[in-house]
Amino acid sequence: MAETKRVVIVGGGFAGLNAAKKLSRSHDVSVTLIDRRNHHLFQPLLYQVAMAGLSPADIAAPIRSILSHCRNVRVLQGAVTGVELNQSLVQTDFGDVPYDYLLLACGAGHSYFGHAEWEEHAPGLKTIEQATEIRRRVLTAFEQAERNPNPTEQKRLLTFVVIGGGPTGVELAGAIGEMSRYTLAKDFRSIDATLARVLLIEAGPRILPTFSDQLAHRAMRDLESLGVQVWTSSRVTKVDEYGVEVGDERVRAATVLWAAGVEASPLGHDIGVETDRQGRIVVSQDLSLPNYPNVFVAGDQAHCTGPDQRPLPGVAPVAIQQGRFVAATILGDIAGQPRQTFHYVDKGSMATIGRSRAIAETKRMKLTGFLAWLAWLIVHVYYLTGFRSRFFVVLNWAWSYLTFRKGARLIVGKEWRSHPFGDETPEVHQETMVSETQPSSA
Amino acid sequence: MAETKRVVIVGGGFAGLNAAKKLSRSHDVSVTLIDRRNHHLFQPLLYQVAMAGLSPADIAAPIRSILSHCRNVRVLQGAVTGVELNQSLVQTDFGDVPYDYLLLACGAGHSYFGHAEWEEHAPGLKTIEQATEIRRRVLTAFEQAERNPNPTEQKRLLTFVVIGGGPTGVELAGAIGEMSRYTLAKDFRSIDATLARVLLIEAGPRILPTFSDQLAHRAMRDLESLGVQVWTSSRVTKVDEYGVEVGDERVRAATVLWAAGVEASPLGHDIGVETDRQGRIVVSQDLSLPNYPNVFVAGDQAHCTGPDQRPLPGVAPVAIQQGRFVAATILGDIAGQPRQTFHYVDKGSMATIGRSRAIAETKRMKLTGFLAWLAWLIVHVYYLTGFRSRFFVVLNWAWSYLTFRKGARLIVGKEWRSHPFGDETPEVHQETMVSETQPSSA
Repeated sequence: MAETKRVVIVGGGFAGLNAAKKLSRSHDVSVTLIDRRNHHLFQPLLYQVAMAGLSPADIAAPIRSILSHCRNVRVLQGAVTGVELNQSLVQTDFGDVPYDYLLLACGAGHSYFGHAEWEEHAPGLKTIEQATEIRRRVLTAFEQAERNPNPTEQKRLLTFVVIGGGPTGVELAGAIGEMSRYTLAKDFRSIDATLARVLLIEAGPRILPTFSDQLAHRAMRDLESLGVQVWTSSRVTKVDEYGVEVGDERVRAATVLWAAGVEASPLGHDIGVETDRQGRIVVSQDLSLPNYPNVFVAGDQAHCTGPDQRPLPGVAPVAIQQGRFVAATILGDIAGQPRQTFHYVDKGSMATIGRSRAIAETKRMKLTGFLAWLAWLIVHVYYLTGFRSRFFVVLNWAWSYLTFRKGARLIVGKEWRSHPFGDETPEVHQETMVSETQPSSA
Repeated sequence: MAETKRVVIVGGGFAGLNAAKKLSRSHDVSVTLIDRRNHHLFQPLLYQVAMAGLSPADIAAPIRSILSHCRNVRVLQGAVTGVELNQSLVQTDFGDVPYDYLLLACGAGHSYFGHAEWEEHAPGLKTIEQATEIRRRVLTAFEQAERNPNPTEQKRLLTFVVIGGGPTGVELAGAIGEMSRYTLAKDFRSIDATLARVLLIEAGPRILPTFSDQLAHRAMRDLESLGVQVWTSSRVTKVDEYGVEVGDERVRAATVLWAAGVEASPLGHDIGVETDRQGRIVVSQDLSLPNYPNVFVAGDQAHCTGPDQRPLPGVAPVAIQQGRFVAATILGDIAGQPRQTFHYVDKGSMATIGRSRAIAETKRMKLTGFLAWLAWLIVHVYYLTGFRSRFFVVLNWAWSYLTFRKGARLIVGKEWRSHPFGDETPEVHQETMVSETQPSSA
């Protein structure tokens, strides 16, 4: 038998993980998967962690545990700092790793369109840390409003702005609306949580531009029924600690969330290959780098055009199909077969709005309301990696659904060291508490 | 009816929460509970979060959600900065709060016996943040060992030291031993996780000093069967980034955990009342402050002597009974009844060692092994606050028990901002990776 080929995969997301799984069935390769995190994250449900519906461990699993039974796959936690394409070496913070085949699947982060300073005031939603930070901010805003007797401040604290009207923005805004109207309704004494204002701001003429007009319109009505105001054709011109500016208008909001721009891992830029404006690496029809047929790019990091010549969207199904395609291409190479062209099979798209509404669209069919939500539930649970996650997510949902309670409403700080009493509470504009607002006995 | 009395409770732990619940049944009081965190934490199971067996939300619940139906109780998240005893005012970071009755139940943190600089290298286990930090450190040590070809470094990375042989130390050490021997056994390629060294260091002549000799001995044998070495009569003289020193001996260890000293909230010291060496406030027989009969202290913050004249231990049952006693005393005062003396009813104590062994002891009975573990399980699940927690914890345990897997093995960082590629990985002594250690195909 021929020598085993060394395949290095950078990134344990949907693309990398699916490539590794497929390659693990072959005796011709030995695989090294490198990720700077120890876990694979089911990003489509990350907004549920941010909204206190799920725990991080419900939607994330250790990569090495997922690949535990793939004996020819080694998982290493570490940071890739560069690629020496001409020497076939991946540079990492623990030394150089040589490869015969390389798959780059590093994903994407947020783009603030040249306003990096906005991130501090408007966190995005790509990692578990960001999700728990958003959870902390949203829940803390309600806590601060409860203890603040100043009506102007209360209003600012109970105003939530979501920037970006794609699926993530719609899901976040819907979930905040629902949380304030149902989950938190009975928990406060001084404020009425159901009066929280939720604003969804979209620069384009309508939300959910990848969906049909009809479904986007329905989603907008569903959002409004949860108290979410949708502002379209509204470009945010400033984000700071007081809120946002949209041209001349100014909204005072304690919590601003970012679901607008996406930017691929900077690795493409660092290694000096052609990238598009969003930093995605431009690949050939077989997902390999021009001039480097043994180097592939997949998932959010790849700029790969579809039949309409537009780049494929950064969604999980694209990454999964590309990861599997690259694995098949490598095995085909070893078996002496000619290269194929990657074709994306679009099975449709979905977005959820609150507790029991969604929109779903395939080539043949459009669904709305509860039926779409059921479809969304089934698809997402089906794709969750690992039995435990599926099982617990379903239970958590069933629980939330039946009780309207959110299971993971924890405000957790960043600092673990023990504190002199009291210095970990978030800052708040200090006001003397009016003791007369004390509730009388029931 | 008489005017309602204003009761302020500081701290939403076992003492504060039980006092609030009991007071909520009366129409004569209106209660304000202040805590700098939004959640009540079931501390006896915190080690399970640190050891990746449970998610934080499984053992913590929002205080305002627990007390949602107590209409005369208001919950405020904020930091108490002082108490003006003579003016009956609690000072907080959101203003002053006046009281007719005050219950201080702020709990305790860790004491490093004058070596505050040790904390950086040996985190303790009192908060969710600390638990996830310990989880991060333990799991990261295994990750770093996997990618490090230097045997000396591997050995240091796979050495875990737990300082303090009380129940928490025993539970932590047992859980690390079990994790390395079962959960992680098949997940690594370069290292043998089952060779991890776990060291439990106790300054006194034996571990678990509050238990009988016989049970402590049994616990030690159980620990040894999980690969934990127990060093008694060993006083740690130094903790730094390389490991620990015990007199002349030096142990190189990447992970050191602190389960030794406890120190009450500094509030007792700040308000100028009598405290013991551990910062606990010395209280009268009715748990009130001498000279301030309307101010009570309960739980880990109180120094209250038992029938043997020794202070009561800092455990949940003491806090629960004291919280209820204080509530009854306040209601008795209002009803014009004379004060009673607090008597602790000791129902016994337990500690668990790994997956299916424990020790339990009451006045009449001693249990060991699986039976003690079952008793431990039932008692802990019974006391978990709120149905959701109980339900999910049982499921999580059943799952872990059946599969030997740990459900929450996430390494989560402290920083949520997006990162230029690669700068979030923990530091590691850099070594060039030997590519020959690549696994061959299975």
